Amino acid sequence: MTKQTIYYTLTDEAPSLATCSLLPIVRTFTKAADIDVQVTDISLASRVLSAFPELLTEEQRVEDGLAFLGELTQDPHANIIKLPNISASVPQLKACIAELQSQGYNVPNLPEAPATDEEKSIRERYGKILGSAVNPVLREGNSDRRAPAAVKAFVRKFPHSMGKWSKASRTHADYMRGGDFFSSEQSITMEKEGEVTIEFVSKTGEVTKKKSLFLEEGEVFDSMFMSCAALQDFFEESLNDAKESGVMWSLHVKATMMKVSHPIVFGHAVRVFYKEVFDKHGELFDQLGVNPNNGLGSVYDKIKTLPESKRQEILEDIHSCYMHRPELAMVDSVKGITNLHVPSDVIVDASMPAMIRSSGQMWGPDGKPKDTKAVMPESTYARIYQEMINFCKTNGAFDPTTMGTVPNVGLMAKKAEEYGSHDKTFEMTEDGTMRVVDANGNVLMQHEVQDGDIWRACQTKDVAVRDWVKLAVTRARQSDTPAIFWLDSERAHDMELKKKVEHYLKEHDTDGLRLHIMGYNEAIRYSMERLIRGKDTISVTGNVLRDYLTDLFPIMELGTSAKMLSIVPMLNGGGMYETGAGGSAPKHVQQVEEENHLRWDSLGEFLALAVSLEELGIKENNPRAKILAKCLDKATEKLLDNNKSPSRRTGELDNRGSHFYLGLYWAEEVCNQTEDAALAAEFAPLAKTLSENEEQIVQELAAAQGKPAELGGYYHANRDNVKKVMRPSATLNAALAAK
Amino acid sequence: MTKQTIYYTLTDEAPSLATCSLLPIVRTFTKAADIDVQVTDISLASRVLSAFPELLTEEQRVEDGLAFLGELTQDPHANIIKLPNISASVPQLKACIAELQSQGYNVPNLPEAPATDEEKSIRERYGKILGSAVNPVLREGNSDRRAPAAVKAFVRKFPHSMGKWSKASRTHADYMRGGDFFSSEQSITMEKEGEVTIEFVSKTGEVTKKKSLFLEEGEVFDSMFMSCAALQDFFEESLNDAKESGVMWSLHVKATMMKVSHPIVFGHAVRVFYKEVFDKHGELFDQLGVNPNNGLGSVYDKIKTLPESKRQEILEDIHSCYMHRPELAMVDSVKGITNLHVPSDVIVDASMPAMIRSSGQMWGPDGKPKDTKAVMPESTYARIYQEMINFCKTNGAFDPTTMGTVPNVGLMAKKAEEYGSHDKTFEMTEDGTMRVVDANGNVLMQHEVQDGDIWRACQTKDVAVRDWVKLAVTRARQSDTPAIFWLDSERAHDMELKKKVEHYLKEHDTDGLRLHIMGYNEAIRYSMERLIRGKDTISVTGNVLRDYLTDLFPIMELGTSAKMLSIVPMLNGGGMYETGAGGSAPKHVQQVEEENHLRWDSLGEFLALAVSLEELGIKENNPRAKILAKCLDKATEKLLDNNKSPSRRTGELDNRGSHFYLGLYWAEEVCNQTEDAALAAEFAPLAKTLSENEEQIVQELAAAQGKPAELGGYYHANRDNVKKVMRPSATLNAALAAK
Repeated sequence: MTKQTIYYTLTDEAPSLATCSLLPIVRTFTKAADIDVQVTDISLASRVLSAFPELLTEEQRVEDGLAFLGELTQDPHANIIKLPNISASVPQLKACIAELQSQGYNVPNLPEAPATDEEKSIRERYGKILGSAVNPVLREGNSDRRAPAAVKAFVRKFPHSMGKWSKASRTHADYMRGGDFFSSEQSITMEKEGEVTIEFVSKTGEVTKKKSLFLEEGEVFDSMFMSCAALQDFFEESLNDAKESGVMWSLHVKATMMKVSHPIVFGHAVRVFYKEVFDKHGELFDQLGVNPNNGLGSVYDKIKTLPESKRQEILEDIHSCYMHRPELAMVDSVKGITNLHVPSDVIVDASMPAMIRSSGQMWGPDGKPKDTKAVMPESTYARIYQEMINFCKTNGAFDPTTMGTVPNVGLMAKKAEEYGSHDKTFEMTEDGTMRVVDANGNVLMQHEVQDGDIWRACQTKDVAVRDWVKLAVTRARQSDTPAIFWLDSERAHDMELKKKVEHYLKEHDTDGLRLHIMGYNEAIRYSMERLIRGKDTISVTGNVLRDYLTDLFPIMELGTSAKMLSIVPMLNGGGMYETGAGGSAPKHVQQVEEENHLRWDSLGEFLALAVSLEELGIKENNPRAKILAKCLDKATEKLLDNNKSPSRRTGELDNRGSHFYLGLYWAEEVCNQTEDAALAAEFAPLAKTLSENEEQIVQELAAAQGKPAELGGYYHANRDNVKKVMRPSATLNAALAAK
Repeated sequence: MTKQTIYYTLTDEAPSLATCSLLPIVRTFTKAADIDVQVTDISLASRVLSAFPELLTEEQRVEDGLAFLGELTQDPHANIIKLPNISASVPQLKACIAELQSQGYNVPNLPEAPATDEEKSIRERYGKILGSAVNPVLREGNSDRRAPAAVKAFVRKFPHSMGKWSKASRTHADYMRGGDFFSSEQSITMEKEGEVTIEFVSKTGEVTKKKSLFLEEGEVFDSMFMSCAALQDFFEESLNDAKESGVMWSLHVKATMMKVSHPIVFGHAVRVFYKEVFDKHGELFDQLGVNPNNGLGSVYDKIKTLPESKRQEILEDIHSCYMHRPELAMVDSVKGITNLHVPSDVIVDASMPAMIRSSGQMWGPDGKPKDTKAVMPESTYARIYQEMINFCKTNGAFDPTTMGTVPNVGLMAKKAEEYGSHDKTFEMTEDGTMRVVDANGNVLMQHEVQDGDIWRACQTKDVAVRDWVKLAVTRARQSDTPAIFWLDSERAHDMELKKKVEHYLKEHDTDGLRLHIMGYNEAIRYSMERLIRGKDTISVTGNVLRDYLTDLFPIMELGTSAKMLSIVPMLNGGGMYETGAGGSAPKHVQQVEEENHLRWDSLGEFLALAVSLEELGIKENNPRAKILAKCLDKATEKLLDNNKSPSRRTGELDNRGSHFYLGLYWAEEVCNQTEDAALAAEFAPLAKTLSENEEQIVQELAAAQGKPAELGGYYHANRDNVKKVMRPSATLNAALAAK
């Protein structure tokens, strides 16, 4: 890599459309700093095509962009801007395949039940494309997330709504007080590298090997289990308690991310809530293949095939459960879809902040907001929500116009902690002992378990922790902000980490830094007390808390987590800059197809690009990159101030118009800066042209709207069509070309 | 003072009766250690008699016991056991005078409106006897309060009831978020001794001197005010909020102790709650002399004289206030006595723990327990109750069988802080400036105030702080327990104190001690987290928190604060040991007069005596005193274990029987100890006699019960009568005499 390059990902849906409009503007600026902006296609369609080169013509073949970026993450010069992409579900993947086939690409169908070796090979290749397949490859580092100053400033002027909290609110978090992962956690640190084996020992002494894995020196390895009996008792008690105290009952898990353990937990909730139904119809359900882990929706699906009278009987039995149970929080009260319908409807890291932002209330069966018991069985992280609920009862809702901010430095590298535990999670099928043994047969950890218990192990690599500590120190220093390591003295894992933190802190100059280690309750309370006094506090957390807190605090501070800066400083020195965590937005594409209006907000891209340029400027000693970064941030601030973000309504300024204003303001800011007179002079004509033609360009952009747009594909749109749709202003195109 | 002496106070009512039975037993033991137990009479009657020697015959004259003890507090050898005494209200004092007169003592009546010099002199002498007159004289030191090990052990076996907390409880503490003493506090430390003057400067510049006082070098002086307008707004808002959210409303102040400021605060609550009544009838009320500071009861009193129709109109107007106001917490729902009836009915330090112990509920107008908004306008200390309420919602009620303990080291000496502010508290009668100026006319502190605001100043002497720090270090060392200085970084006063604490800590060896300084919320949370894990934490607090916390934690831990050890290590080296904070119990005397059964529990005396003996043993190098102390503690533990505390029911074991068992167990423990064989041998006969005659003695003590007892006076009983009543067992008396 000789030329300084920013790798900009081409993804799916709305973000990929936006990129077509934004990139020509961006390149107009970056070329002045001698920076190349290269596009790498990691869209779902591209990943499918690159998986089957042998079935495509030479012209049809595409590079494996994800593999390319995966290698790039190891390069110290890597500078990647990563836009939201599709984490494909099976239906999405099938639709993509069908579209590609209709376009003449000879990609195979997804085998439902692969039988032959060929089918198995195909299934395996598609398996690597399914679900959250991009982030694990690219996130080769820890996580640095913060609210950009421009966004904070905007919110202080134009705050989002925050529901008032009643001091007498009945809402609370509820969680297990024993028998969960938290209370059973054991943790060790490997003195030397070596293989460990996870084994099950039956009551009769039979040993079954569950998994072997090779651990590095200094790697932290945890094991823990959740008791099925304790979990079911807890659900029963919490339901009775909610019924008695007259609050709604709601369940908050993360079945998408914790894809092995949380669906099981969810299933137990369904089983306990509808106990009488499962007791009475259990055998029939088994025959039908009803799996409560898929929610009550699965019951409705599977009983469709039954005779009407039987179906009615079951529906009535379901209905009568509601008589003696508390009200359930609703996902859609009009359609009667409850919190227990589908395991992925309510995702704790999004649902809890939403509830706390809305006066601590969720929607009841009658369509009214109500106080609720928010059940998160595993207590490890649930406690922080109770802490915030108590805080809001005492101090009222947070005030976005005066509150400080809580940036996060998260331990994410190398699939740290629970988020890498899926292949080491087991549901017990009999009573016995789960144990971890080393190569010499020494038992390192063990738990007595019972049929139905969920046992799991987690890994945390030393290199990840060391880098995380460094990142925390760097952020604390750069932002002159206190940084709190959230490490709980009651967690075995955290105490292993604490030793490492204390050790690695010695590698840095921490003079004058305010670094503290606190338990979770103390840490969140400390941060909140500062928050309402307008003070900032960096949260330095593990992987799950990273995920939770980077929704929780941004949703209070900014109304959304999509406006956060999300940076992955990679272990090898490169940087990845993620934009807008709000998903790739299928509804946005639909609006383009029908009315040629793209409401996607590229704010995340503006912010990420500025940091990308700034860090490139520092690392590659490119002063112009730094100037462009500074000017871009000012332009973004001005754009927010002047309300030039995309409107949701067709006919008004959309994503393309917003890009135009960004270009205009950016050019003006470059002209106004005095550090580099040549650069200012260079951009004077562009600033003048854009400014003078503002009305004309906005009108051209608006004129394009209102009629259907032909993209030539959803997953694999026609690039020429997209270009035509996304760059409709001849005046703007000419001005950019003239630069 | 050559002989080692314990001064045992003779007080009033039940405690004084109990003393007559207990002391002969005590002396049987102490004489073996060559310790004299002297009685000093500080009863109300004695204090009255000693105030008028010139009006009494020589035989009638009594020593001024309080003055004697007051001098004794300056003696390093002082060892005083202080029993509860009457803090006389005006009606009590009048009754006492009448009784003494009827017994032939020529003491004068209390002049209601003293006119002549003589009347004024009489009034002045009685003034020194009224109210809390004993503690200020004797408490010549800071405060050391803790739960005795024997009592903790007993409670762990036989826990008091604790109301279950609902996680969905609506109960909360509510307090001002500005405009109160907390938010206006200013504080200075005197660099040199000198006079300061508190002045009011009117809007026209007129200066009125309010008070001058001489401050010592290093003395901390605070000033602060509560805004009347803010207070009234707060009451209105909190009433509306309670009404809207459907919880009861209750007010918690300490009008008895904070005798100047809190009645005013209480009066504003009455005025706001019954706003329409005061608006409509204000003029009439002024004529009648209605003072809302005395509660709604005062309205009822004063309107008695009005014509029936007018009275009815006012009563109806009062009634209609209830229509649009929230329900009021009741003091007596049967009699319709609300929380706003009398300012002294609900005393925050007792009422809040009682509420928290009872599921966070108070009694409603319908006689049912209900969730309540507990209003404590001044936020300084109110926050700790909200913290505990949130804690109980989250963790459930405290469990007396497993919880740790929170002893207190309280800054009390020299009338520290707010509890000495009464003579420096002023209610404003016009807008202007309150300021504190030094002898040179420099303004040290000032506040803009408005008509109706309450301004006050507080003093804290350096010598008191220095001794308090020493006591904290001593207790932390002796009990190997972490000690938390509750000093809030948001309080100007506390930050002055913090400097002193940090300075004086250097005078001590704090190696290995766990001493921390925390804000109030953090401190109580830290203590509670430890508490539920069975861990102990010393609270090192200011004077008000001393008062509050030594009710709050004991009521959770022991069900009462009366079983706490309450020690005042005096500034000059002596010690005062207070017993049973539960008052002197008029109802107990009534039961003796009617049925000759004394249910008074002398547990407090047993515990205090053991510490008194222990410290005497250490200070005077008297090993036998130490042995007696240890044996007494064991005897007390055995007494609790065997349930030999007084029963409430006539015919069962009472105070006297309990004393017998204490004597028996104490003698047995002395026999069983091996440190001093001679002592053991000396007590062998007594132990044998008491043990062999147990049935006989208990029967003799029981036989005395069931018929009226003639004490020959209430305030000034006949000593011979009392002796006859309180020592009815000839067998016991003979056994003691034979030792």
